[in-house]
Amino acid sequence: MLINLINPNTSPGMTECIHQAALAVCSHGVQLRSVHPTQGTPSIESYLEEAIATTGVIEQVIAGEKLGCQAHILACFGDPGLDAARELAQAPVIGIAEAAMHSASLLGHKFSIVTTLSRTLAMSEHLVHKYGFAQRCAGISAVDIAVLDLHNPASQAYERILKACQQAVEEQGADTLILGCAGMADLNQRLSQALGVPVVDGVSSAVGLAEMLIRCGLSTSKRHAYALPPQKCYTGWAAETINPI
Amino acid sequence: MLINLINPNTSPGMTECIHQAALAVCSHGVQLRSVHPTQGTPSIESYLEEAIATTGVIEQVIAGEKLGCQAHILACFGDPGLDAARELAQAPVIGIAEAAMHSASLLGHKFSIVTTLSRTLAMSEHLVHKYGFAQRCAGISAVDIAVLDLHNPASQAYERILKACQQAVEEQGADTLILGCAGMADLNQRLSQALGVPVVDGVSSAVGLAEMLIRCGLSTSKRHAYALPPQKCYTGWAAETINPI
Amino acid sequence: MLINLINPNTSPGMTECIHQAALAVCSHGVQLRSVHPTQGTPSIESYLEEAIATTGVIEQVIAGEKLGCQAHILACFGDPGLDAARELAQAPVIGIAEAAMHSASLLGHKFSIVTTLSRTLAMSEHLVHKYGFAQRCAGISAVDIAVLDLHNPASQAYERILKACQQAVEEQGADTLILGCAGMADLNQRLSQALGVPVVDGVSSAVGLAEMLIRCGLSTSKRHAYALPPQKCYTGWAAETINPI
Amino acid sequence: MLINLINPNTSPGMTECIHQAALAVCSHGVQLRSVHPTQGTPSIESYLEEAIATTGVIEQVIAGEKLGCQAHILACFGDPGLDAARELAQAPVIGIAEAAMHSASLLGHKFSIVTTLSRTLAMSEHLVHKYGFAQRCAGISAVDIAVLDLHNPASQAYERILKACQQAVEEQGADTLILGCAGMADLNQRLSQALGVPVVDGVSSAVGLAEMLIRCGLSTSKRHAYALPPQKCYTGWAAETINPI
Amino acid sequence: MLINLINPNTSPGMTECIHQAALAVCSHGVQLRSVHPTQGTPSIESYLEEAIATTGVIEQVIAGEKLGCQAHILACFGDPGLDAARELAQAPVIGIAEAAMHSASLLGHKFSIVTTLSRTLAMSEHLVHKYGFAQRCAGISAVDIAVLDLHNPASQAYERILKACQQAVEEQGADTLILGCAGMADLNQRLSQALGVPVVDGVSSAVGLAEMLIRCGLSTSKRHAYALPPQKCYTGWAAETINPI
Amino acid sequence: MLINLINPNTSPGMTECIHQAALAVCSHGVQLRSVHPTQGTPSIESYLEEAIATTGVIEQVIAGEKLGCQAHILACFGDPGLDAARELAQAPVIGIAEAAMHSASLLGHKFSIVTTLSRTLAMSEHLVHKYGFAQRCAGISAVDIAVLDLHNPASQAYERILKACQQAVEEQGADTLILGCAGMADLNQRLSQALGVPVVDGVSSAVGLAEMLIRCGLSTSKRHAYALPPQKCYTGWAAETINPI
Repeated sequence: MLINLINPNTSPGMTECIHQAALAVCSHGVQLRSVHPTQGTPSIESYLEEAIATTGVIEQVIAGEKLGCQAHILACFGDPGLDAARELAQAPVIGIAEAAMHSASLLGHKFSIVTTLSRTLAMSEHLVHKYGFAQRCAGISAVDIAVLDLHNPASQAYERILKACQQAVEEQGADTLILGCAGMADLNQRLSQALGVPVVDGVSSAVGLAEMLIRCGLSTSKRHAYALPPQKCYTGWAAETINPI
Repeated sequence: MLINLINPNTSPGMTECIHQAALAVCSHGVQLRSVHPTQGTPSIESYLEEAIATTGVIEQVIAGEKLGCQAHILACFGDPGLDAARELAQAPVIGIAEAAMHSASLLGHKFSIVTTLSRTLAMSEHLVHKYGFAQRCAGISAVDIAVLDLHNPASQAYERILKACQQAVEEQGADTLILGCAGMADLNQRLSQALGVPVVDGVSSAVGLAEMLIRCGLSTSKRHAYALPPQKCYTGWAAETINPI
Repeated sequence: MLINLINPNTSPGMTECIHQAALAVCSHGVQLRSVHPTQGTPSIESYLEEAIATTGVIEQVIAGEKLGCQAHILACFGDPGLDAARELAQAPVIGIAEAAMHSASLLGHKFSIVTTLSRTLAMSEHLVHKYGFAQRCAGISAVDIAVLDLHNPASQAYERILKACQQAVEEQGADTLILGCAGMADLNQRLSQALGVPVVDGVSSAVGLAEMLIRCGLSTSKRHAYALPPQKCYTGWAAETINPI
Repeated sequence: MLINLINPNTSPGMTECIHQAALAVCSHGVQLRSVHPTQGTPSIESYLEEAIATTGVIEQVIAGEKLGCQAHILACFGDPGLDAARELAQAPVIGIAEAAMHSASLLGHKFSIVTTLSRTLAMSEHLVHKYGFAQRCAGISAVDIAVLDLHNPASQAYERILKACQQAVEEQGADTLILGCAGMADLNQRLSQALGVPVVDGVSSAVGLAEMLIRCGLSTSKRHAYALPPQKCYTGWAAETINPI
Repeated sequence: MLINLINPNTSPGMTECIHQAALAVCSHGVQLRSVHPTQGTPSIESYLEEAIATTGVIEQVIAGEKLGCQAHILACFGDPGLDAARELAQAPVIGIAEAAMHSASLLGHKFSIVTTLSRTLAMSEHLVHKYGFAQRCAGISAVDIAVLDLHNPASQAYERILKACQQAVEEQGADTLILGCAGMADLNQRLSQALGVPVVDGVSSAVGLAEMLIRCGLSTSKRHAYALPPQKCYTGWAAETINPI
Repeated sequence: MLINLINPNTSPGMTECIHQAALAVCSHGVQLRSVHPTQGTPSIESYLEEAIATTGVIEQVIAGEKLGCQAHILACFGDPGLDAARELAQAPVIGIAEAAMHSASLLGHKFSIVTTLSRTLAMSEHLVHKYGFAQRCAGISAVDIAVLDLHNPASQAYERILKACQQAVEEQGADTLILGCAGMADLNQRLSQALGVPVVDGVSSAVGLAEMLIRCGLSTSKRHAYALPPQKCYTGWAAETINPI
């Protein structure tokens, strides 16, 4: 079972963090192709950077399809490029934001999301609505730590995330928490123990969902919305990346 | 990994059908406790029968918890007793209707549900709304075959379900299909090949979701809505079934 | 005019309290069959207890139908068993939560619900959505007094409910209040005078709705969703309670 | 018990038809003040005519308040002037569209509305959303008979309404029907017998709801949205009608 | 290009304030017919006054149509009479509440509305839902200054509105603000500079929208909902105002 | 007044068609910078192509900002890159899909969208929900003509679009139509005359909205969601296009 685990940004440290989180939960026999795009943005904290990352996701989904990957995971909480990836792939594609929300909705009545920068709150809110979880979401809050500072001890990331989680449980009424960044994937167990409620990391959930779909023989529908895109003559980066599909 | 696979009705044939569907997808090392309640209703096609089945689900969730099951699956498309089961269980609990909808929403833009009797359409519609999939559901239709007639060749179940699925794809715009009864769990692959779109069976999806949650170390939140119920002195069937928790 | 006034729990004191609330508002010529199930749970504060109470509701709806009751009222704010009762009954069936919300929506722009235990907030929220009142509901709050402590002076129930109501008016913007427990049915007038806004008790509203439907000659639709359930051979408690319909 | 039964249009025949429908269901001791405005429009089939009728409703609500009416009913399916009437009245105010929808939602899973002219479909749709019944409404259809032609045998009103109702049950999945015009208030029983499902007339439902609120001692909230309007010096028709409140 | 700029209340000072706001933004060649009704209410702060103002709007829309106005603007934040005006007019009709919400939704992710009296909050909330902006609205708050006191220095209107706007940005998460009264139309630029976010006034937005529709050759649809009203014989004020259409 | 009119695809013929549609409606003194990206895709009919076009939109928004453009228009009905463009721009940004929906909602009760390929129906549906027009949209249908075939007489584009529009009015109940492709911008007047209802083209509406915002002095909010993106070191195409902001 070969899973294409794509970190949409270009930071090798993030790719490794994501790889470890996936490795910890995947079942016997699963192989992970843990990669990041050859070019793009070191972290994703804006709509602009989601657009940049989307081009890298397209590149790596195509590469993964050629290698026969049986599922693709997009390991950034904005799920950048998810629709385009589903269109390009025969295999199923899973974003970690949707994965986390699906998991959380199986565990409790209301989840809250704790994410990095305030400027990304609108993105998470949009996904909550797009995926249908508006009534299940108790709140979305930000700790205002940049993605690449999460592993810098000076940021006190764990303490600030813990505090935001506690407020979500006490004040928003959440019974389940979602960590809104792939860079937080190493914190969920420690937080869960401290809080006494489930804390969901999207990377590990996405691996489980990918295995589920593969074992059930389910893949992206090629009728209607996600049919393979028509063949056309692109120019620029798209010509190099996509044309020879 | 021990999974409590509960058929909420009392028909042994259904339990076996569900068991086979689960067996076909579960990964190495998973053990299934495939059971049905000691008493109840032979099939579930009304609100009344959902209420009867709920008491059997409670009985079997309690039994499964005592045996150390790491997840519970409720294998009836109405997800009877799901909230009560989550309250009673430390382990995660998954209904096959929610499992099917979560799976389907990862595979396409719109799913349709094909179920048994028209009288149950309102139940499925209620679940679609409760779980947040109203915008993702293209339609719900019934073939008007009773649950226990599905395996009777005279019912022409396969042909009628196939036809309803084709209408869902052509007329409702569905790109993914959900089989709305555990008793259809043996038809999804054949239908998928005939239709050329993914056909989701909730039993197999639920097994995959259960494995995912177990591997991720995630379980039902015990804060707020699903906290263990208060201890009280019940009378009647509840006294026998529940009191000695 | 004979109305079947069912207290879904087994506490005779609650049945009496409900009976008095109904008696105070019913018009000349109305007879109340005020009952509780022969077995079940002394109060209803969890999904588990709703499941237990549902079996008692089924028992008493069947009994009431045999006696020729012209309407059934389910006097617990979770409306346990409402769908099953509608299926079983020819006469109309009304839950007190829905009754209270329908009443409140005729009196103001926004209502708030004040209920007993925090653990039941999710249940009330679910009903608000199911019945279509999400935009009309300003908030739901709990005083964290158990149902059976409401009439214990040590609980200071009146004072704590009054305070929660005041917060609902001042902070949530409610102009109308709903008491979220049949056990509060004796408090609405006193609260209304203290607050200066309408305070709705579901029991009295349900009696008025029942009279309205009876006088209008309206009864539960037997087409589609609430058709009589199919006849089957049940086992266990259901066999004793239901089979001889 | 004095109820102010206002026909918002100026046709005496309609006022009499409404009066008879109310008389048939009101309980012993209820007195009806059945009136129409002194000036306005002979029927209401446009937004313009709703605006005209609203000024007549205001006139008659003020008159009814002065006479000590304990409830006001607005007997036109567009509920014209409902918000203004609630503001002006101490007593509760009920529109027959909302009354019909509340009743119907107690009787089945889905209702359909059958109304007069196609041009009013948007009005009914707006009310369905405003009152929170969007998920409960299976459809709205028009027979394209003008209000004042309903009692003209040449219009074949009964036959055409019956046919529209049958389509609503068979094709839209409705289990309950609502007659979308006060002028149809004499048809509901005949239709119900022919169709085998409940057919709701808003006038009789509104009378029952008014009695319910009066017996429960409930009245329009005077906090926030429906507080009495500020006293001002109006000119024109408003000066004559309203100023001396 | 002739635009009918209707102040729905009867205060000449408000009409002049609205006229100046429109004049400041309209393009070369636009002529404004800035008027108010011949009779009605000096300001609009209740449902009753919206009903009064609606009759004046009808009068002035008819007058404007006769003069060949190419668009009508209703310059009161409750958009009183909008539906009736659309029905009566061949030219397009724009309310300033909808104009402001359309504008604001092009500028940011979430807008908040700051309005005059608390009693009107429900009206604004209704319009937010009716126009489809519920997910885009971060909040609605009132400064509790009566419309006709806005230009009285003793009311400290600017300071109180500024404070409410700041709270909307900091606490509600708004990135854009809407002034919820035509009488605030002279404050938006000063507030925008102080706050550092766009502050939308509905009058100027409505002028721009009117010009847009006129240049695009677009006008109110006369099919279905907004077809011209049927000709009837009205009595009272309607006879004088409308009959000779 | 300088407006940046961006055709997101790379077909010069489309750019010219869009330019002419804009020229026909813009007011005196407006200058149009009508451009397309230097590289990308010749037409946009898939999520993949939206991702490609987004990178071209980013390029041209940056170029337009440097030239002092006072508004940006994205002239493709999928509004590709709208959020990223708003983030990058100080000036307001308008997509033609949102422009068309805002216009249409001012003209009638319900609009329908007629677009090119069926595979893009899901994209339009997503925008309808994102922009808040779900209740105002009567339907979305496709004529299944590729974008670049619209001007090929063999495609019979006008006839097939006319037929789809007629069905929308008759069967879906639409009173207003939206043309779902910038390549149809030359058809709206002819269609409107044939149909007798308003037919909205997004390009001309967007020009009018841009003028409106410019005259009102309104621009994209730089607080919260659309603040300028953080400065980072990108690699690949993004480095060339964006880094020197």
